[in-house]
Amino acid sequence: MAKNGNISASVIKRLPRYYRFLGELDKQGVERISSRELSEKMKLTASQIRQDLNCFGGFGQQGYGYHVQSLREEIGHILGVDKEYPTILIGAGNLGKAIALHINFETRGCRLVGIFDANPRLTGETVGSIAIRHTDEIEGFCNSEHPVIAVLCIPKANTQAIADKLVGLGIRSFWNFSHYDLSIDHKGIEVENVHLGDSLLTLTYRTNQMPEGPAE
Amino acid sequence: MAKNGNISASVIKRLPRYYRFLGELDKQGVERISSRELSEKMKLTASQIRQDLNCFGGFGQQGYGYHVQSLREEIGHILGVDKEYPTILIGAGNLGKAIALHINFETRGCRLVGIFDANPRLTGETVGSIAIRHTDEIEGFCNSEHPVIAVLCIPKANTQAIADKLVGLGIRSFWNFSHYDLSIDHKGIEVENVHLGDSLLTLTYRTNQMPEGPAE
Repeated sequence: MAKNGNISASVIKRLPRYYRFLGELDKQGVERISSRELSEKMKLTASQIRQDLNCFGGFGQQGYGYHVQSLREEIGHILGVDKEYPTILIGAGNLGKAIALHINFETRGCRLVGIFDANPRLTGETVGSIAIRHTDEIEGFCNSEHPVIAVLCIPKANTQAIADKLVGLGIRSFWNFSHYDLSIDHKGIEVENVHLGDSLLTLTYRTNQMPEGPAE
Repeated sequence: MAKNGNISASVIKRLPRYYRFLGELDKQGVERISSRELSEKMKLTASQIRQDLNCFGGFGQQGYGYHVQSLREEIGHILGVDKEYPTILIGAGNLGKAIALHINFETRGCRLVGIFDANPRLTGETVGSIAIRHTDEIEGFCNSEHPVIAVLCIPKANTQAIADKLVGLGIRSFWNFSHYDLSIDHKGIEVENVHLGDSLLTLTYRTNQMPEGPAE
């Protein structure tokens, strides 16, 4: 059904949000929703929503709205949530542990199969159901388990060496929480950078612009 | 200098990235940079960059490029990094601790002044230099310290009650890591939502679309 050869990056960026909102609606027992109702919830225009979803062949029926469950399933399929990409996480500090625990890898197209940290005192400690291994074990682990995605929760200074090693071991996709720009040194990989500081700065800006007066 | 009345949300979203890249360049000792060079680094078009920076009165001089340090300072000023908004963080689990430690509140327009958690076993434990307080103390703390920004690192189920309370206590800006949609119930507040799961799904999608073959 999906004709997803040439979808723009901005549409792709919105798909997880659609997936999330539709999941909420599904949980609430909503069966159908119009683009107008969805636009109010998502704070996009109805025409934007129709245009976005049209990229994939169009799911809506004029006058009937979208079938929540099947639209969600289709978007999930496009996003690859039904995949189980074996995933490793490097860096089991607070952030690494939080990411390992809070993100439900099982339903997101990833399956967390290994956690690594350079600190030998963390070796053997479990996060969720996974025991932390020493980073020395990465090579052997990759050779036997063939992970596809790596989550990098390590300081910027350590990232280049680890990334070089992981690319050599066949990792192609990086969820990168360090501030090191991976795509400078490697071609043919996918990198999703998370810059939490940028998000906070955006909020600071908006705080700066707020009119005086109490909230409701 | 800044004529920043009507800046679009998409430009604002890019400003922290400019600020970050210019900081890197400044650290490397780069004094001036052309929009073309900056565009290569940032993967934006040169005309996009000129257009973005023009929103603020235009910093570049034709033929000379941008002065890195003063452009960075000006963008920082627009973003409000020179402010010190007193900030509290609610929820001192792994994620909350990571956020408290990893984000340098000092240089981002925020100053972390309090950390709260509902778990009494965490009370008194320090994160960085700040002792965790019990959530029962939030009211008294807000009445004396008047924090402006709250960082929410708590489960979705608990967010509505805490947010209602915080808005009543004068908090106007929320950096929200829970999946609860704060802006539904409150007007006149600023909310920056962080949905880490959306970011991961974007990566899953792109992993799904990758051609076969080794990376370099």
